[in-house]
Amino acid sequence: MSAHATTPPASLWDTICFDAAGLIPAIAQQHDTGEVLMLAWMNREAVAETLATGRVCYFSRSRGRLWRKGESSGQTQHLVELRLDCDGDTLLVLVHQQGVACHTGRRNCFFRAVRGGELKEIAAPAVDPASLYEGRNG
Amino acid sequence: MSAHATTPPASLWDTICFDAAGLIPAIAQQHDTGEVLMLAWMNREAVAETLATGRVCYFSRSRGRLWRKGESSGQTQHLVELRLDCDGDTLLVLVHQQGVACHTGRRNCFFRAVRGGELKEIAAPAVDPASLYEGRNG
Repeated sequence: MSAHATTPPASLWDTICFDAAGLIPAIAQQHDTGEVLMLAWMNREAVAETLATGRVCYFSRSRGRLWRKGESSGQTQHLVELRLDCDGDTLLVLVHQQGVACHTGRRNCFFRAVRGGELKEIAAPAVDPASLYEGRNG
Repeated sequence: MSAHATTPPASLWDTICFDAAGLIPAIAQQHDTGEVLMLAWMNREAVAETLATGRVCYFSRSRGRLWRKGESSGQTQHLVELRLDCDGDTLLVLVHQQGVACHTGRRNCFFRAVRGGELKEIAAPAVDPASLYEGRNG
């Protein structure tokens, strides 16, 4: 069987802990380079869809609905492996990121660092963010 | 100046977003290997102490107090760089992990993976977890 089980494993559902809002934080990491791309949130339905389809789906807290990563930008994430931490309350999602993960056009969202006592930008956009959303629904 | 500023940079405090509970999720990543070690939470005081001392300090939600990583286990984390994401609501903390990050004795907390439709343990403890807390205060 592939990592993309069509039926979510019962042991995952017995172990995973959603918070009071029904959400769990999910760290997306590029599977081969180890780059931490972003952190987003999943609800039960997003976890199930991600496992069923192999395409990473989050729950957008701002939009209050499922968010299939890349649905607007085309910058999809393909599931390589879903991992759960010792407390069952955080997911590590190993992915292959198509293009850039960040809505600013950068490869990952962690492009600001405290250096020399100040918050500095340490990465420039790889693509023009405007180009990610042209002709799409935001 | 080193990355361990004694005075927290104003621009960080202007940009960082704590949640309604005054917390922000912090992903700890081993700086040189890219291994994602754990996710924990920081409040403003934990962020300030981490930057001031160079030793990573979280806020324990279960204990309701600051948690200087390794204070019980000896498995401390030393700050290499603190990064902030695009929305300002997640930290990526590049660290050097002394020993193991997980209270189960494993190097990192993400030792369970969905494989073949089941949740499987994919890493064994590197050290006996009982040995981490012997003669210490839990």
